[in-house]
Amino acid sequence: MTTTSNTPASNGGPNSNKGTVYITPLVHSLSLDILEFSALSALLVDGEGIIQWVEPLDSALPRAEREKEVHRVMADRGITSDQVELVWLDDGFLCPGLIDTHTHAPQYPNLGLGSDLQLLDWLERITFPTEVKFGNLEYAREVYEEVIRRSLNAGTTTSCYYATIHEESTKLLADLCIHLGQRAFVGKCNMDRNCPATYTEATESSIASTEAFLAHFDKPTVPTYSEPVKPSRLPLVQPILTPRFAISCTPSLLSSLAALSASRTPSIPIQTHMSENPLECAWVTQMFADETGAENWGKTYAGVYEHYGLLGPGTILAHCVHLDDEQREIIRRTGAGVSHCPGSNMFLSSGAAKIRELLDLDIKVGLGTDCSGGPSIGILSAIRSASYISKFNSFPSSSDLIPSPPRTRPLSTPNLFYLATMGGAALCRLEGSIGNFLPGKEFDALWVRPRGPGMFLRKGEGLKEIFEKWIWGGDDRDLGAVWVRGKRVAGTAGKETG
Amino acid sequence: MTTTSNTPASNGGPNSNKGTVYITPLVHSLSLDILEFSALSALLVDGEGIIQWVEPLDSALPRAEREKEVHRVMADRGITSDQVELVWLDDGFLCPGLIDTHTHAPQYPNLGLGSDLQLLDWLERITFPTEVKFGNLEYAREVYEEVIRRSLNAGTTTSCYYATIHEESTKLLADLCIHLGQRAFVGKCNMDRNCPATYTEATESSIASTEAFLAHFDKPTVPTYSEPVKPSRLPLVQPILTPRFAISCTPSLLSSLAALSASRTPSIPIQTHMSENPLECAWVTQMFADETGAENWGKTYAGVYEHYGLLGPGTILAHCVHLDDEQREIIRRTGAGVSHCPGSNMFLSSGAAKIRELLDLDIKVGLGTDCSGGPSIGILSAIRSASYISKFNSFPSSSDLIPSPPRTRPLSTPNLFYLATMGGAALCRLEGSIGNFLPGKEFDALWVRPRGPGMFLRKGEGLKEIFEKWIWGGDDRDLGAVWVRGKRVAGTAGKETG
Ligand SMILES: [Zn+2]
Ligand SMILES: [Zn+2]
Repeated sequence: MTTTSNTPASNGGPNSNKGTVYITPLVHSLSLDILEFSALSALLVDGEGIIQWVEPLDSALPRAEREKEVHRVMADRGITSDQVELVWLDDGFLCPGLIDTHTHAPQYPNLGLGSDLQLLDWLERITFPTEVKFGNLEYAREVYEEVIRRSLNAGTTTSCYYATIHEESTKLLADLCIHLGQRAFVGKCNMDRNCPATYTEATESSIASTEAFLAHFDKPTVPTYSEPVKPSRLPLVQPILTPRFAISCTPSLLSSLAALSASRTPSIPIQTHMSENPLECAWVTQMFADETGAENWGKTYAGVYEHYGLLGPGTILAHCVHLDDEQREIIRRTGAGVSHCPGSNMFLSSGAAKIRELLDLDIKVGLGTDCSGGPSIGILSAIRSASYISKFNSFPSSSDLIPSPPRTRPLSTPNLFYLATMGGAALCRLEGSIGNFLPGKEFDALWVRPRGPGMFLRKGEGLKEIFEKWIWGGDDRDLGAVWVRGKRVAGTAGKETG
Repeated sequence: MTTTSNTPASNGGPNSNKGTVYITPLVHSLSLDILEFSALSALLVDGEGIIQWVEPLDSALPRAEREKEVHRVMADRGITSDQVELVWLDDGFLCPGLIDTHTHAPQYPNLGLGSDLQLLDWLERITFPTEVKFGNLEYAREVYEEVIRRSLNAGTTTSCYYATIHEESTKLLADLCIHLGQRAFVGKCNMDRNCPATYTEATESSIASTEAFLAHFDKPTVPTYSEPVKPSRLPLVQPILTPRFAISCTPSLLSSLAALSASRTPSIPIQTHMSENPLECAWVTQMFADETGAENWGKTYAGVYEHYGLLGPGTILAHCVHLDDEQREIIRRTGAGVSHCPGSNMFLSSGAAKIRELLDLDIKVGLGTDCSGGPSIGILSAIRSASYISKFNSFPSSSDLIPSPPRTRPLSTPNLFYLATMGGAALCRLEGSIGNFLPGKEFDALWVRPRGPGMFLRKGEGLKEIFEKWIWGGDDRDLGAVWVRGKRVAGTAGKETG
């Protein structure tokens, strides 16, 4: 990254109100099937972190001519050199930040544990004993800081976090996201039944503590930080209602949370798990059928959530591995969306979610790591696993020895990158603010600058090749910079040791 | 790693004839189902890189007491302090080196390319155009050095390489393996039909150049290196016959290579591809049925290889995704083994190999990266993908919504690590020399010393937890040292930048 300006480069991003013009190759999604590659563009991010314009440049020009072209573009837009900082990203490319639509901050210390278990045993033996520790604020601070840092380093600019049932440490998680600059949705878990005695809540206190958690976000600024929060169109960190899953919530808790969600405009978003594991699905339908006298809605997992008012355009349903047409129709008509967590689904042997069928119904889909149900931090890993699951679903089910057409079309590279960026943005109702580089959006971005050992580059390769090599072989070492809302929050550039 | 000796530590391994005692936790496979964890052991590697003994120590003792115990163990064995160097591996653990039983050295520059293609198109559009460049020795040297280095850094102590059809650059690959210290099998590809005009051989010259390649290994030492090759029981790098796959070889070429293999005792090992992709399988059986008048053996892929004499205890068959009982029986009775390449099978949509069924027949199985059919360097990635494929194969095939018993048992963590080490060793007929830490074997080992961002460790974790976290979250940064035959050849220890 080389900079040309009258003031020193501020980590490659604005920390004054000065704008920044990035001159760089870029890649972003325009739709599920259209991935745009620009060999060279100039992109102006203003002092508030908003993309003002993106202008393609002629990448065949020599450097000096390019510079003239940049100044011509700026002049056309009425911008003079002293108003902006020019930043040349000399190798690699720029792409939108990755969006993790489902992850559990307290579970990162368990990453990699439990691969021989399935969901219900794994919750009891691995997960709940760890989550209960987050009653301790000092423990929570230590883990949560590390979680946010590692996730930013992996290129996750927006993260939808489940915390635990603990109100104070969940507030702390939200505060740390603001402090470290990660865009996030943070949820205090609600769980008032079928949990260990040491890790459960009474219905009333679950709701009261959720309301207190929401109130934490109503303060004009979060008071504990030295930097004032900049005025912007949307808060960087928002609360999200988080009934853990149907098994751990009484009907009364589910109804109260739905009412809480609907009490504001726009509704408070909701995240929960649905149809992850066959035994879980059987338990849910059995449980609600018993309780409600087996009314029709109690016969499917989606029917239960719809009945209690939890499904709407602000709802993120993690997993959705085991669905029938009726459940897909419920998701579609309520406008809820799906967080596909392929690493978790394979790690915990949950099943192979049929994502193509959801996309064909125009159901919103994003990707999630579901750490530590999934063993890997970061959405690159989710992209790879999502590709694998979609290929698995494409394999002919009859005889292996007879070539036959694929059962379903695997997710293509453009599909996968859409899910990781724009799909996730839409799932979070942030498609107008982030997810690609259209003017008016906020600059949540990655500078991919190959340095790690998984990218085996050769001279003269095109942008498309480098992009594909990053998707399949990149890691945190390949991220020169990570920006959220225009501010650099992570990345290796400038940290070389010679 | 701290050392106690009268001479300075030589990279944590012997470069004199002095032995080394490693005092360390260790993990290794005793069988397919038994993974042994030792909280603390002392392990003596002699000056020739042979493990002389392994003795469990009491890990509950304080450090000073442990030291006394080590000296007591040494005294019992008649060893004095001046005869050995003591190396304390103070965090992490030791495990056997990983064995990559199938990979293509010239294809690493393509890692990550072609994920939307299947085998036959991928060969034509991605692979052959790259392989043909290895007629140029300078290009080959640059790529091959980098391949070996990255693969050693990833913990691959033994690698079964396919090179290209080019005799000279394939010799160079073998020489570089010796020079950089990687145990390897290196094969010059044989392909005399159904290949691009610029990248094919005449049958006679394919055989002649294979014989010349074999002769390269008959020299007593490889003359181009400054260090003399130490006397040892087996050559570090061996040739392997490499008919690419049935499609690219005429019957005459297949027969000649089988005869060449049988001309020595033990037979020269053979590696090839089998039953990877449905269209490939259909082509093979059609082709040989046409040529041979549809005799019975020509009806399956395994039947073709058996007919031409290519299957035996020294044969490594990559993939074997699409097999019926008859083909499995052919593999079993000939004693051939299978290199399971799960990353490649998913990347190229080839199918989900049924490894449990092979293991239940006592067929030898190891793991392979199949770079760049697979997108990732290193066997940790293959372990993860093998787990995922085995879980896919366990999912009930009937209705998703009815809980039912798994179709097949997924590969457990002990199963997976066995395949990555002892399974690979057996496949290479090296089970008496490497694969675990039994006395008498050569010391091919990894010091796993967690440093990378994928391992989220907490204080007080046990060896089993740290091991599992490495399996699922480890990368090259977590390898403090990599040894082959007792000599350190890679690893990050001592390279910290403070
Ligand atoms: Zn989850
Ligand atoms: Zn291969």
